[in-house]
Amino acid sequence: MESVTTLMAIGGAMDQEDATLMREFIRRAGGPAAKIVILPQASELADTGAQYVSQCLELGAGQAVALEFRRREAAGSPEQLEAIRTASGIFLTGGAQMRLATILGGTTLEAELLQAYRRGCLVGGTSAGASILSKTMIAYGKSGPTPRERIVQFSPGLGFTDRFVFDQHFRQRDRLGRLIYAVAAYPAVLGVGLDEDTAVVVEADAALTVYGSGAVTLVDGSQIRHTDIAEVENKGPVAVSNLRINLLTHGCRFINGQVIFPDKTSP
Amino acid sequence: MESVTTLMAIGGAMDQEDATLMREFIRRAGGPAAKIVILPQASELADTGAQYVSQCLELGAGQAVALEFRRREAAGSPEQLEAIRTASGIFLTGGAQMRLATILGGTTLEAELLQAYRRGCLVGGTSAGASILSKTMIAYGKSGPTPRERIVQFSPGLGFTDRFVFDQHFRQRDRLGRLIYAVAAYPAVLGVGLDEDTAVVVEADAALTVYGSGAVTLVDGSQIRHTDIAEVENKGPVAVSNLRINLLTHGCRFINGQVIFPDKTSP
Repeated sequence: MESVTTLMAIGGAMDQEDATLMREFIRRAGGPAAKIVILPQASELADTGAQYVSQCLELGAGQAVALEFRRREAAGSPEQLEAIRTASGIFLTGGAQMRLATILGGTTLEAELLQAYRRGCLVGGTSAGASILSKTMIAYGKSGPTPRERIVQFSPGLGFTDRFVFDQHFRQRDRLGRLIYAVAAYPAVLGVGLDEDTAVVVEADAALTVYGSGAVTLVDGSQIRHTDIAEVENKGPVAVSNLRINLLTHGCRFINGQVIFPDKTSP
Repeated sequence: MESVTTLMAIGGAMDQEDATLMREFIRRAGGPAAKIVILPQASELADTGAQYVSQCLELGAGQAVALEFRRREAAGSPEQLEAIRTASGIFLTGGAQMRLATILGGTTLEAELLQAYRRGCLVGGTSAGASILSKTMIAYGKSGPTPRERIVQFSPGLGFTDRFVFDQHFRQRDRLGRLIYAVAAYPAVLGVGLDEDTAVVVEADAALTVYGSGAVTLVDGSQIRHTDIAEVENKGPVAVSNLRINLLTHGCRFINGQVIFPDKTSP
């Protein structure tokens, strides 16, 4: 039997005071019974892993450890694999998503992460850690609301899902243009633009729930009739017809293409 | 039971006189019993589909048709889906791979193509049609033997395989640098550089056989110890340690990481 898979993608810059998003992550990982593994490889800072471990324990997680290494040749030790095998929550920190792809891609540790996800272990990430969750991720790009030729650079991600492409720091860094480009380039994926301090939980690779203080912008290309994206040159603007956009805030859900608003009338 | 899947990726500029590669494609699709469907969407030229249909019939294919449309809104008609359902070979022509991704991505026709592949239908493509076979494909890039920051632009492909990334016109356009970059960026994939008039057949997403007048360059990143690809800026050169390269020519095979040379002593 397949367990229900769960991803939690966070748009970066989490509010550290109310810590709504990390509380939700810990709750879903089991709270006092949670065994959380932090992967800080995206970060350039040496204390990123330790900081997340402290925060998780303060917020009531049963156990939390960080796997500290920064080179591909160090990925996949027996201790690391055992930590992943017994984890109830795995968290990928911010930084540069290309570091995660190059350090973890094609290692036994990566295979173990995918297996943990499939058995039902919660997998979360913020900023670079959110981008890397996609099979083909947004690696780099430029700002602006208009999609333009080559405004976005893709790269292969860890591939927990191939149905969504996540972008982060979304409105703060004005990234609608690049997310529209990403969806128009391959309309099979749903574009998920995550504002800072805002998250989406994806269950069974299909059902979305939004948390946090900002919004999630969903760019749906499934009904696109035509685009000239393959013809445009020299960073010119790209035409796309019949895109659909949904803007979701805390408590909103998105299931089978339908938005479900939270019931404000309930106590 | 799962059938054996088969891909045939061709490096472009096929020799039209001996037609070794198209003969092999037709032979594997069933020869006189073959039912071949040509997808010319990558091409800007109106007669590309018709030319391939003529060639397939001349070379002895039982049936051949081209699905002629160039806009996403026209993808997925009942006639198209029926043609794919009953095909023994599907062929994607050259042109621009972004056209294939934008016209077919997320349509019912794309889903039918993937299903045909899984049931054992041969899927082949040349040039852009080879690139698009990968889950994350090389969409654009620059020439040169040295991998440099952003030398390659990826984009999502149709995703018949996520274990290989194909590049084409390989030595003719001096693309070793960009293929090394693509592999270093995500070492889980094996880089396959296809010279012109040269092809690789991939069986069961694992076993490779080479055909044609040039070579296939395999860039294997599985043993990479370290790379600075996430740190390099401003198009600087990228360092990578412990890459492995294999150069295969007509008749060579590559199975489980081992090269098998053709037995020249047999008659």
